[in-house]
Amino acid sequence: MTDLRPDNRHRLVTATAGLFLRRGYHGTGLKEITETSRAPVGSLYHHFPGGKEELAAESLRVAADGYEGVVAAVIDSAPDVASGIRVSFAAAAEVLRLSDYADACPIATVALEVASTNERLRLVTGAIFEGWTEMLATRLRSAGLDAVPAREIALTYLAALEGGFLLCRAAKSTEAMDAVGRFVADRVDAALAEADSR
Amino acid sequence: MTDLRPDNRHRLVTATAGLFLRRGYHGTGLKEITETSRAPVGSLYHHFPGGKEELAAESLRVAADGYEGVVAAVIDSAPDVASGIRVSFAAAAEVLRLSDYADACPIATVALEVASTNERLRLVTGAIFEGWTEMLATRLRSAGLDAVPAREIALTYLAALEGGFLLCRAAKSTEAMDAVGRFVADRVDAALAEADSR
Repeated sequence: MTDLRPDNRHRLVTATAGLFLRRGYHGTGLKEITETSRAPVGSLYHHFPGGKEELAAESLRVAADGYEGVVAAVIDSAPDVASGIRVSFAAAAEVLRLSDYADACPIATVALEVASTNERLRLVTGAIFEGWTEMLATRLRSAGLDAVPAREIALTYLAALEGGFLLCRAAKSTEAMDAVGRFVADRVDAALAEADSR
Repeated sequence: MTDLRPDNRHRLVTATAGLFLRRGYHGTGLKEITETSRAPVGSLYHHFPGGKEELAAESLRVAADGYEGVVAAVIDSAPDVASGIRVSFAAAAEVLRLSDYADACPIATVALEVASTNERLRLVTGAIFEGWTEMLATRLRSAGLDAVPAREIALTYLAALEGGFLLCRAAKSTEAMDAVGRFVADRVDAALAEADSR
C-alpha cells in the first residue's frame, strides 16, 4: 500500500531542492528524487499530481523562501544595510569555499534551464527573483533611498550576486564574488551618503 | 555507410551550441543533436569519440569564441571603452527583446549544470569566463587603468552581464540589464576619470 504520510511531502520537497542546487532540473530524475527523499513514487504523485513540474514549482518556492530568510537575516543583523550587503557577499564567498563551490543560489540553474522551455516554471523563478529584489529594495528605502535608486541597486545587487555565483563556481575561486561585493557595497555607501546629505 | 564528411562535424558543433543556449546540457539529447544537425549518429562518434561530453566541450569553446568576438567588436567600435561597455549592455538587452528572451549567454546554463557534476566541462567553462575577463581587462588597461582595478572591473562587468541575463530571462523584461548596465558603465567612467587625473 502506498505510504501517503504528510512527512513524505516535506521530504520530497527538500530532497528535490537539494538535487536542483547541484544538478539542475533536467539533471534530476524522479528516481533520484524518490531515492534521496526515501518517499515512495506513489506518494510523489499523491502529493504532486502534476508530477515533476509541480514538485519543482513547490521545491523552488520553499528553497527560495529559505534563502531569502537567510540573506535577510544576514543583512538585518548588521549595524546598517550597507555593511549588511558587504557581509552578505562575504558570507556567499565563504559558503562557496566551504561547500567546494556547490552551495550557491538554489534557483539560478533551474531558472536558466526553464527560461525558454517551461513557461510555468519560468513564472515561478521570475516571481522568486522579484520577491528577493523587493526584500532588498524595502531595506534600501528604509535606509533613506528613493524608490527608483532603491530598486536599481537591489536589481544590481541580485544580478551581481548571481553572476558572482556563476563565475566562482566555474573557476572554483571566490575572486569574482569578492570583486562584485566591494563594487556593490561601495555603490550603496555612496548612494546612502548622497541621500543623507540632502 | 556512415557519412564522415567534415561539414557534419561543423553542423554537429553549431547545432549543439544552439540547443545548449535554449535547453542546457541535460535538456539536450543526442537524438535532438543529430536531428537538428542532420548529421548521422555514426558521424557524431567518428568526430567525437568521447560522445556528448566531448562534443559539448567543443561546442562551448566555439560558441564562446563567437560570443567573445561579437562583444569585443561592439566595444571596439565605440569611441572609447566606457561607451563601448554602455553599448554592449544595451545590445544585450536588445537581443533579449528580439529573441523573446532566449538569446543570452551561450555558456551560463551549461556552466551551472556542470559546476558540481562534470569536472571536465567545469574546467572548459572556467577557461571561457577567464578568457572573456581578460579580453575586457586588456581593453581597460589600454585605456589607462592599473592591472588590479582593470581585472576587478572586468569581473564585475561579466558577473553583472550574466546576472542580468538570468534576471531578464526569468522576468521577460530588460529592467535588470538596463540597471546593471548604467551601474557598471558609471563605475568605468569614474575609474577612468580618476586614472586620467593622476
